[in-house]
Amino acid sequence: MMKLLGQEESEVSRACENVPTGELDNGSGSGPGPDGPLDADSGELGEPKEPLLFIQLNELLGWPQALQWRETGRWVLFEEKLEVGAGRWSAPHVPTVALSSLQKLHSLLAKGLVLLDCPAQTLPELAEQVTRVESLSPELRGQLKALLLQRPQHLIQTTGTSPCRGSARPRATSPDEEAPLQEQQNPLRQKLPPGTEAGAVLAGELGFLAHPLGVFVRLRDPAVLGPLTEVPLPSRFFCLLVGPPTLGRSYREMGRAVAVLLSDPQFQWSARRASNLQDLLVALDAFLEEVTVLPPGRWDPTVRIPPPKCLPSEHKRLPAQMPEAKGPFARRRAPAEHRHGGGPHAPSPELRRTGRLFGGLVQDVRRKASWYPSDFLDALHPQCLSAVLYIYLATVTNAITFGGLLGEATEGAQGVLESFLGTAVAGAAFCLTAGQPLTILSSTGPVLVFERLLFSFSRDHGLDYLPFRLWVGIWVATFCLVLVATEASVLVRYFTRFTEEGFCALISLIFIYDAVGKMLTLTQAYPIQRPGSLAYGCLCQYPEPGGNESQWTSTKPKGEDDILSMVRKILGDFSSVLAILLGCGLDAFLDLATPKLLVPREFKPTLPGRGWLVSPFGVNPWWLSVAAALPALLLSILIFMDQQITGVILNRAEYRLRKGAGFHLDLFCVAVLMLLTSALGLPWYVSATVISLAHMDSLRRESRACVPGEPPSFLGIREQRLTGLVVFILTGISIFLAPVLKFIPMPVLYGIFLYMGVAAMSSIQFTKRVQLLLMPAKHQPDLLLLRHVPLSRVHLFTAIQLACLGLLWIIKSTPAAIVFPLMLLGLVGVRKALEWVFSPQELVWLDELMPEDRSIPEEGLEPEYSFSGSDSEHSELMYQPKAPEINISVN
Amino acid sequence: MMKLLGQEESEVSRACENVPTGELDNGSGSGPGPDGPLDADSGELGEPKEPLLFIQLNELLGWPQALQWRETGRWVLFEEKLEVGAGRWSAPHVPTVALSSLQKLHSLLAKGLVLLDCPAQTLPELAEQVTRVESLSPELRGQLKALLLQRPQHLIQTTGTSPCRGSARPRATSPDEEAPLQEQQNPLRQKLPPGTEAGAVLAGELGFLAHPLGVFVRLRDPAVLGPLTEVPLPSRFFCLLVGPPTLGRSYREMGRAVAVLLSDPQFQWSARRASNLQDLLVALDAFLEEVTVLPPGRWDPTVRIPPPKCLPSEHKRLPAQMPEAKGPFARRRAPAEHRHGGGPHAPSPELRRTGRLFGGLVQDVRRKASWYPSDFLDALHPQCLSAVLYIYLATVTNAITFGGLLGEATEGAQGVLESFLGTAVAGAAFCLTAGQPLTILSSTGPVLVFERLLFSFSRDHGLDYLPFRLWVGIWVATFCLVLVATEASVLVRYFTRFTEEGFCALISLIFIYDAVGKMLTLTQAYPIQRPGSLAYGCLCQYPEPGGNESQWTSTKPKGEDDILSMVRKILGDFSSVLAILLGCGLDAFLDLATPKLLVPREFKPTLPGRGWLVSPFGVNPWWLSVAAALPALLLSILIFMDQQITGVILNRAEYRLRKGAGFHLDLFCVAVLMLLTSALGLPWYVSATVISLAHMDSLRRESRACVPGEPPSFLGIREQRLTGLVVFILTGISIFLAPVLKFIPMPVLYGIFLYMGVAAMSSIQFTKRVQLLLMPAKHQPDLLLLRHVPLSRVHLFTAIQLACLGLLWIIKSTPAAIVFPLMLLGLVGVRKALEWVFSPQELVWLDELMPEDRSIPEEGLEPEYSFSGSDSEHSELMYQPKAPEINISVN
Repeated sequence: MMKLLGQEESEVSRACENVPTGELDNGSGSGPGPDGPLDADSGELGEPKEPLLFIQLNELLGWPQALQWRETGRWVLFEEKLEVGAGRWSAPHVPTVALSSLQKLHSLLAKGLVLLDCPAQTLPELAEQVTRVESLSPELRGQLKALLLQRPQHLIQTTGTSPCRGSARPRATSPDEEAPLQEQQNPLRQKLPPGTEAGAVLAGELGFLAHPLGVFVRLRDPAVLGPLTEVPLPSRFFCLLVGPPTLGRSYREMGRAVAVLLSDPQFQWSARRASNLQDLLVALDAFLEEVTVLPPGRWDPTVRIPPPKCLPSEHKRLPAQMPEAKGPFARRRAPAEHRHGGGPHAPSPELRRTGRLFGGLVQDVRRKASWYPSDFLDALHPQCLSAVLYIYLATVTNAITFGGLLGEATEGAQGVLESFLGTAVAGAAFCLTAGQPLTILSSTGPVLVFERLLFSFSRDHGLDYLPFRLWVGIWVATFCLVLVATEASVLVRYFTRFTEEGFCALISLIFIYDAVGKMLTLTQAYPIQRPGSLAYGCLCQYPEPGGNESQWTSTKPKGEDDILSMVRKILGDFSSVLAILLGCGLDAFLDLATPKLLVPREFKPTLPGRGWLVSPFGVNPWWLSVAAALPALLLSILIFMDQQITGVILNRAEYRLRKGAGFHLDLFCVAVLMLLTSALGLPWYVSATVISLAHMDSLRRESRACVPGEPPSFLGIREQRLTGLVVFILTGISIFLAPVLKFIPMPVLYGIFLYMGVAAMSSIQFTKRVQLLLMPAKHQPDLLLLRHVPLSRVHLFTAIQLACLGLLWIIKSTPAAIVFPLMLLGLVGVRKALEWVFSPQELVWLDELMPEDRSIPEEGLEPEYSFSGSDSEHSELMYQPKAPEINISVN
Repeated sequence: MMKLLGQEESEVSRACENVPTGELDNGSGSGPGPDGPLDADSGELGEPKEPLLFIQLNELLGWPQALQWRETGRWVLFEEKLEVGAGRWSAPHVPTVALSSLQKLHSLLAKGLVLLDCPAQTLPELAEQVTRVESLSPELRGQLKALLLQRPQHLIQTTGTSPCRGSARPRATSPDEEAPLQEQQNPLRQKLPPGTEAGAVLAGELGFLAHPLGVFVRLRDPAVLGPLTEVPLPSRFFCLLVGPPTLGRSYREMGRAVAVLLSDPQFQWSARRASNLQDLLVALDAFLEEVTVLPPGRWDPTVRIPPPKCLPSEHKRLPAQMPEAKGPFARRRAPAEHRHGGGPHAPSPELRRTGRLFGGLVQDVRRKASWYPSDFLDALHPQCLSAVLYIYLATVTNAITFGGLLGEATEGAQGVLESFLGTAVAGAAFCLTAGQPLTILSSTGPVLVFERLLFSFSRDHGLDYLPFRLWVGIWVATFCLVLVATEASVLVRYFTRFTEEGFCALISLIFIYDAVGKMLTLTQAYPIQRPGSLAYGCLCQYPEPGGNESQWTSTKPKGEDDILSMVRKILGDFSSVLAILLGCGLDAFLDLATPKLLVPREFKPTLPGRGWLVSPFGVNPWWLSVAAALPALLLSILIFMDQQITGVILNRAEYRLRKGAGFHLDLFCVAVLMLLTSALGLPWYVSATVISLAHMDSLRRESRACVPGEPPSFLGIREQRLTGLVVFILTGISIFLAPVLKFIPMPVLYGIFLYMGVAAMSSIQFTKRVQLLLMPAKHQPDLLLLRHVPLSRVHLFTAIQLACLGLLWIIKSTPAAIVFPLMLLGLVGVRKALEWVFSPQELVWLDELMPEDRSIPEEGLEPEYSFSGSDSEHSELMYQPKAPEINISVN
C-alpha cells in the first residue's frame, strides 16, 4: 500500500475536523501536526492508512436495442449524480439509499459470486474471472464478457454548443478518438490525492439472463482496468449487478447501494480485509446496524441533503472487527472541554506559573530562540507575498484612520505622520523580538479612547500634554515590567467571555456614539439647506463605508470560503480600502466642501515647534511625573487586558501553532515600545485582534486536493516573522504617501469608525442574547444555550450584563471617565459574584467557568445528562464552530 | 370514529400540498373544495378519514432511587424533543431513528404482549391488563402496576424565574395541585383538531425485571387515561417497553421508534386494522421496506432536519394491505403537467372556444349569474374587513402614484383628481359586473407608458390631446368588442413565459430608466452645492422608498408566513404606504425645497377650462377620428395582453376558485369602461396582477389548527364582489383627501416607481438566467432547469432573450416608439421560431410548450427518463412552488 507525503498529517485532522483526502501542498516543510485531545486515538489500528476510494457507477442502458454502459453516478465522500439532461454533475450530496435496496443487495450477494484477492491484472482477465458462473451457459458467458469489454460512456464537460435540434442528450465520448483528451481534461483528476484507488460498480437490466447475477471482486493488486472508470486509477473493487428486467429498476438502486457501502470508511475497512463471503455480509450487517432511518411519510427521499458541516468522528464508530473498542471511544466528555477545548482559557503550558521572578519571560525567550532561524526560512513561500499585500493595505488603512482620529482627539498634538512612523517602528520592532510575531501591532480602539480621555484631562487642567503623556508612558512601562516579572499573564484566565464581551460592548458603543456625534456636529458647521436659499439641500446621508461590504468582513464564514471565487474574496478583503476609495472618489467627483484629513507638508511632528524627542518636563510641575502613575495604572490595566486577550485568542489550539506562544515576552516588548513611543510622541501600540487574525488567516496552510463536497482541510499556519516585518517596512516607506492622503474627507473616516463599532457589536453573543429579549420563543434560533438553559435564566444573565454596561456608560460620561479601565476590571468581580446567582451548568453555557471551578467532576456538572439519555448532546458540543467569537480590539 | 366539520375539506389538500390536520375555520360557508387532478384518488379507501394521532414518550428515569415517568418527546407530524436543561420543547424536526432500534423493537414485540381491541376504559384497568404477563411473579406485577399508575411529569411553560442556585432542572408539575392549570395552559391543545387521539409510549430501564418486557395495546374504545398524556385526549394506543439495564439506553430509543412508527400514516392505518401480532409485524416490515437510509460515515445522526417544505403524497406510497394499488398511484406524469398544472396555460374550460359569435361572453354571463347572490353573501366574514383596509391603502397609493406620474406625463391634461375619480368609478363598476370580481382594476405600467407616448405624439403634432384620446378609446373599445365576439381570449395560451418575461422586462427597464432619469433631471433644477457657496451640499441620495421594505413585498415567502408575527406582516403589507409616509415626513421635517405633487384645489378637471365630458373633436381635424384607429390597434393589443395574462394568472388552478373565470366578460367590461374613461378624460384601466394577487392573498382561507412543524394549509379563496366594491367606494370618498396629498414630494413617487421596476425585474426567471451568464458552474444554484438543460443551451436562450430586449429598447427609443405593443406581440413569433433552435425537452424547462406541442406523447417528450431510472424527477416537479412567477403589470 502506498504511503504518501503528508498523508499522516491529513489523517490526523480527519478525526476531529472533517475528512480530508490528502496533502499536495509541497511547500509545507512541517512535520506531523500536534495531536489534539480528540486525536489521541488516531492510528490506534496500528496499520498504514487506507487509500481513498473513488467509486463509479456504470449503468447498463438501452436494452434491448442499443446496449451501452454509461456512468451515471460517482462517490468519493459524497454522491454526485449525472444530470443527464443538462450534461453536468450535480452538486455533491449525502448519499441516501432505500433500505430495501440494501436488503436486496444482501440476498443477491449471498447467492452470488464473491472473488476476494482476485489475481486479474487487466479488464479481459477480470471479465474472464467474473463470467465463470456455473449457472451461465458458455454462450451467455461470451455475450456477457463482450459486454463487459465494451467501452463505457463518461461525461465530458464540453463548452461548445451543438446547434442541432433535439440535442438534449449529454455530450459523451464517441468510443475511440476522444478518450485520451477526456482523461487529460477531467477536473476530478486533480482533486483526488495520489494513491487513490477506484471501485467500479456495473449495474443494469440484461434481458438475456434468466436469473439476477451478482459478482463482487476485490483485486489482489489494484490495476487500471482500461477505460472502465472516468479517471484511470488502479481499481481495487469491482461489482457487477445485472439480471432480467423483472426486478424493475432495482439493479441501479442496488448499484448505488454498493457504491454507498464502499464509500463508507468502516465497510471499506472490512471489505479490504474480508477473507470470505461471510465476512462481507457481516460488514454489511454492521453497516446496517449503524444507519439512521428517515421515515417515508415525513421525508421526501428525492431531496438532496447537502454535505454536513462536520462529520461524526470515525472514532465514535466501532470497526466491525473490534466491537470491544466501543467503550473507550464512546466515553463521555464535559461540555466545557469541547466548547473551550483550545479556547481562550485552556490551560496552555505558556500560561503555567513558574514561581520565579521573570521566570515566564526567561522561558519564553528560551523557547522562541530555538525557532528564530526557522522564523525566517518558513517565510519562503509565495503565499507570504499575498499575505504581505493584504496586511499592508489593512495596516495602512488603520494608520490613516487612527492617525486621523488621534489628530482630531488630541487637537493636533499627534497626527497621521506620527501614526505612520509609530506603526512602522513599533510594528517592525515587535515582529523582530516578540513572542508571537504573528500578532500585528496597531493603535487599537480602547487605547485611543483612553488617550482622548487623557488629553481632555490635561487640557482641562492646563497641562502640557506630550510631557505628561511621556510620564504616563514611563509608568506604564514600569508597571508592565512588574507584571512581566510577577508572571501576571497567567491571570488572564479569569477574563471570561462575560468580561470580554463587556469590554467589547463598551468600546463598540463609544465608537458608534462618537461617529454619530461627529456627523451631527458636522451638520452644524455645514448646515442642511433650508428653502429660501437657492440650493436644493437634503439630508447628508453618506454612503456608509463598508455598508455593503461589511457582511464579508464581519462574518467571515470559514466553511463557505470555498464557494467564493478569488475575485470576490479580494473584494471582501479590501472592503475598507474600497470603501475609503469610493468615499474619496465621490467626494472628489462632486467636489464637496467636506473637512479633509490634516496632513503635514513636511516630515516633522504634527505639533508645531517640537522636535522628535519629547522633553520630559516642559511647562508641567515636577510632581506631575509622580502623579502620572495614577492614570498609568489605569492604562496598564487596559493594555494588559487588550494585549493578553488578543494573545490568548491568537494562540488558541485550533490554529495548531507549533512554535508556541510567548505571553510574557509579548508584554515585555509592548512595555519597551511604550517607552519608545511616549518619548517620541508617537501613538501607543498593542496587538490588535482582528488584524492579527486576518494575518494568520492569510497564512493558513490548507490541503489543496479536496474531493467534491469536502471543504479544504486546515493544516496549520506559516509561522514566521518576515511577513510582519515586510509589512511594517512598507508602512514606513508609505510615509511619503502623505501628499495623497489629504484628499480623504473626515466623514469617510467617521464612517469606518461607525462600521467598526457596529461590526464588533454584532459579533458578540451578548448582542444575540439582547435580541432574544425581544423575540417570542417560537421565532428564536436554535442556539445551543437555549437548549440547555431556561429562557428566564438567559434573560436574567443578559439583564445583568446590560445593567453593568449601563453603569459603565454612566461612569464614562462623568468627570471620572478616565477610571473606566478599572471599571472594566470590575467586571471580573461581577462575574465572580454571578456564581451565587447561577449554577455552574448554566454558566458553562452562558459564559464559561472560572479556573478554580473547572475541577468540578463531570457528573456533578451536568446532572441533566443522567436522564437526557443519549450521546447526542456531546456531539452537539464537539461540532461547535471554534472560530474566534469576538472582535475584542475593534480595529 | 368522530366525523368533523371541514375534516373532509382538509383531507383533500393533504394529498398534494401538505399534511393539514383539520379545519377549525367556522366561518367558511363553502362546501368541499374542488379536487385537483392529483386529488382524484383521495377517499379511494372508501372509509372515513383517520383521526390524527398525538404520540407522547414518557421515559422512566431515576432508577433505582427515585423512579419517575417524565415526558421527553412528542410527535404529531414531526418530532419535538424536550430540552431538559432549558425546560422547553425543541423546534419540530423530521424524526430519525437508528435502524437497530427498529429491529430490536421488532424482536421485542414479537415475543411480547400484544393486546388488540383491549376493552380497558381507565388507566387502572389498562395497568391490570398490561401486567398480565406470565413471566412476571405476582409481586412484580403489583410493583409494575403501581409504577404505571404513577403520575408522569410533563413540562409546563413557566415564565417566572426561580432564583435558587442549581435550578437547571425543568419546571415540572408537582404531582397534584398544578395539573388542572397545566391542561388549560398547554398551547398544544389549541393546535390539535377535535377528534385527535393519543398514543402513549412508556419506556425505560427497570432493574427489578429479569427480562425485557414489551407490550403493545390498541384500545377498543379510546379513553382518557388519567394524566398519562400532557393533553387529556382519548388514548387509542399504548406501548410499554421496560426491562433490565443490560440493553443500555435502547429502551428510550425503542420508545422513539414506536412513536415514529405510530406517527407514520401508513403504519397507523395498518395498526388500526391489525387483527393479530402478525399483522403488526407485517406493517413494521412494510414501513422498513420504504425507509430511506443515511449512511453513518457521511451523516451526523444528531443533526435535526427541519421539516421539508413539501411532503411526499400519501398516494405515492402503498398501503400495506393493498399492494396491488401501486400501479395507478405511482404512475408517471409529464413534467409540463406538474409545473404548469393549473399554470397560465392549462386548458381551463373557460378558454375553450364555443365557435359562436359572443359565445364565450354568453357562457361567462350565464355562469357568473348563478353565483351572483353568493358573491355578496360570501363576504360576511371579518377577514373581508381587513382585506378591504389593506387593498384600500394599496389602491389609494396606486392612485396617487399613477395619478401624479400621469399628470406629469401629460403635462397636466390629467392628474391626481382624475386618477381617484377614475379608479373609484371604473373599479366599482368592474367589481359589480366583471367575470372575475377578485381582480382589482388599476392604471398599470404598460398603459401609462403607452399614454405617455401617445401624449408626446399628439403634442409633437399639435393635436388636442383629450379629444384625440377619446377617439383612441372609442376605437379600442370597438376592437376589444371584436375580440370578445371572436372569443380571441382563447389565444392567450400562445403567450408563453418567454413573451411574458419579455413584456415584463421591457416595462421594468422603462420604469427604472425613467425614475433614474427624472432624479437626474431634478439635479439640474435643484443643483448639488459646489464649494464656494456657503452651503454644504451633497448627493441628493433619497432614502429609496421601499428600499428596506422591498424584501417583504417582492419575495413574499409563502412558506415562511408562519414565522412572521402579526406586527411584521402588517409592516410588510403596508411597506409602500410606510415608505411614502417616511419620505413625506423626512421632507417635512427637514423642510426641503422639493417639487411636490400637484393637486387641484377644487373638484374640477385638472386641465383648466374643460368640463367633465370631453368634446369628441375640439380643434382636431375630423379625419383624426379615423386615424386614431391605428394607435388604438396598438393599445388594444397592449390591453388585451395585460388584461388577459392577469386574468389567467389569477384563475390558476392552485387558487382553487370555485366560481370559475370569465375572460370574455372581463374583456367586455374593460372595453365598456375604456369608452367611459375616455369620454370623461380619466385614466385608462385594466386588471393589475400584483394588486389583484394581494387581494386574493388577503382573502385566503387557511386551516387555523396546525400541529407543530406544519405550515397552515390552504383551503381556498373567499370569492365575492363586496370587498372590491367597498374598496372603490372608499377610494371615491378619498377624493376629499386631496388637500393632504399636496405634501407628497415627487421624488418619493419616483422612488416607488424605481422600486416597482426593480422588484418586477428581480421576480422573473430571465433575471436569474442573466446572472447565470456571469457565474462559474460551481457556484450556480441548484435550479431545476440546470439539472435538465445543458448550460450552453441555457445561455443561448438567455442571449436570444437579451437580443430581443435590446431590439425592443432600440425601437422604443426611436420615433416609432409607439408601435412597441406590436413588437411585444412579435415576441410570440420569435418564440415560435425558437422551436427550430431548441428541442421540445429544452423548451419545457426553459419556457413552456406552445399549445399545439402539448400533444406530444410523454415518452417522446422526455427521452432522458428512459434511462435516468427513478421517479425522483417526477417528484422534483411535483414539489415546485406554484406561486405566480412574475409581476407582469408592474404596479
